[in-house]
Amino acid sequence: MNKLSVIKIGGNVIDNSEKLHQFLLDFTALPGDKILVHGGGKIATELGDSLGVTAKMFEGRRITDIETLRIVTMVYAGLINKNIVAQLQAKGSNAIGLTGADGNIIKAVKRPVKEIDYGFVGDLDETSVSAVALESLLKAGMVPVLCAITHDGDSQLLNTNADTIASAVAVAMAKRYETALIYCFEKRGVMRDINDDSSLVREIRLGEFDTLKAEGVVSGGMIPKLHNAFEAIKSGVEAVYIGKADELSQIDQQNFGTRLIR
Amino acid sequence: MNKLSVIKIGGNVIDNSEKLHQFLLDFTALPGDKILVHGGGKIATELGDSLGVTAKMFEGRRITDIETLRIVTMVYAGLINKNIVAQLQAKGSNAIGLTGADGNIIKAVKRPVKEIDYGFVGDLDETSVSAVALESLLKAGMVPVLCAITHDGDSQLLNTNADTIASAVAVAMAKRYETALIYCFEKRGVMRDINDDSSLVREIRLGEFDTLKAEGVVSGGMIPKLHNAFEAIKSGVEAVYIGKADELSQIDQQNFGTRLIR
Repeated sequence: MNKLSVIKIGGNVIDNSEKLHQFLLDFTALPGDKILVHGGGKIATELGDSLGVTAKMFEGRRITDIETLRIVTMVYAGLINKNIVAQLQAKGSNAIGLTGADGNIIKAVKRPVKEIDYGFVGDLDETSVSAVALESLLKAGMVPVLCAITHDGDSQLLNTNADTIASAVAVAMAKRYETALIYCFEKRGVMRDINDDSSLVREIRLGEFDTLKAEGVVSGGMIPKLHNAFEAIKSGVEAVYIGKADELSQIDQQNFGTRLIR
Repeated sequence: MNKLSVIKIGGNVIDNSEKLHQFLLDFTALPGDKILVHGGGKIATELGDSLGVTAKMFEGRRITDIETLRIVTMVYAGLINKNIVAQLQAKGSNAIGLTGADGNIIKAVKRPVKEIDYGFVGDLDETSVSAVALESLLKAGMVPVLCAITHDGDSQLLNTNADTIASAVAVAMAKRYETALIYCFEKRGVMRDINDDSSLVREIRLGEFDTLKAEGVVSGGMIPKLHNAFEAIKSGVEAVYIGKADELSQIDQQNFGTRLIR
């Protein structure tokens, strides 16, 4: 099987043009087939403020009313996605920018209303991602760049968590490619001591996860992140990396963040 | 050679959700390979007004400063393009929404500054369109939906006239497909008497164009439109149609607008 890297970047890279430029250079230099997934960043919130549409949040999650959906569609699928694509093209990656609606690549289900109505938010399941469509683009020599917008197959666009998209894409592609899933975030990875940069945990095996939780090495927001990563590994993804975007170039030297494996 | 239709719609369809819905149904029903090109409509101007960015025009052409480019990128490539794609998917077309940057499908040149600086506007030449990239998407069973944004290959997005894109795409594809170029606009086509709907001219051959100009049947804004259409025909496009979007379903019965042929 060919190798595939599914790489996710978030607001901390997107909001910083210097960082983004360097990341896109490193991304382009990475060998093998690649898919980039990007989140939103501050621009959507800023545009909302300018238009008098304030971001509604519940437990850290954006509530997507129809006005907010318009804004994130403009910012994620338009402004951010197309600027990333134009920059990748200039750097030599044959990028193609997509939402889940394009080529029906990711069909989501609008989140059911329970205590909270999250609005136009899409949830994914194991049937959501079309690996066939993504593979046909990769085989045409293209580099898919996915933003955090999907659709329901019935004309409705849906706002969808970019981490979830990256994971679902990696799992779907793992049947066809030897797939690595790479999350770029603010920290270097899992740290034994949050104040000591040299305490980075280089590798965690699935069987060690419970011990590290018990020891408190993995705590707080890192627990669900690693839980989801190991779920992807259980579903066939070869390895999940969690690290800093500006260290991506060192991934081939096994020198990037924390590597999670079976 | 397989048949291909390149169809362009403008603001009068995009701004009217009923019309757009019907058009997308008719578009989906059209047999053969298809590419849709869409313009902008009022939404970009409205968003600009809301953000205090007023549209600057010169002789009917928008001047695209950096703020305007941000707005048209959000509205054309994000809001309009992705909503059209989601609607086409629901209707059974496997649409994929693209700017010229995506897959390097259309590489433009920033318009040189002469008396007027049009800003971030892209001009096309015979090398701009990648027929290879478009063909690979068509062969993968996808329906490309192009908005009026291109790039210069050096990270810069550019605002580009949608009529020009449609024509350049049709000419580039004509070497690989038996290509028809279809412009949907406000009128039924070329009319002998502008006040008489039954006076539609069904067909104009290249050799008749000068006579119709001399007779005044073709006048005003129709002259450059038809001139460009015949240029496309001289460059290999099989036929160019000019007609009303809501009559598109009758094109197979040779009952749509004015047909221009060699």
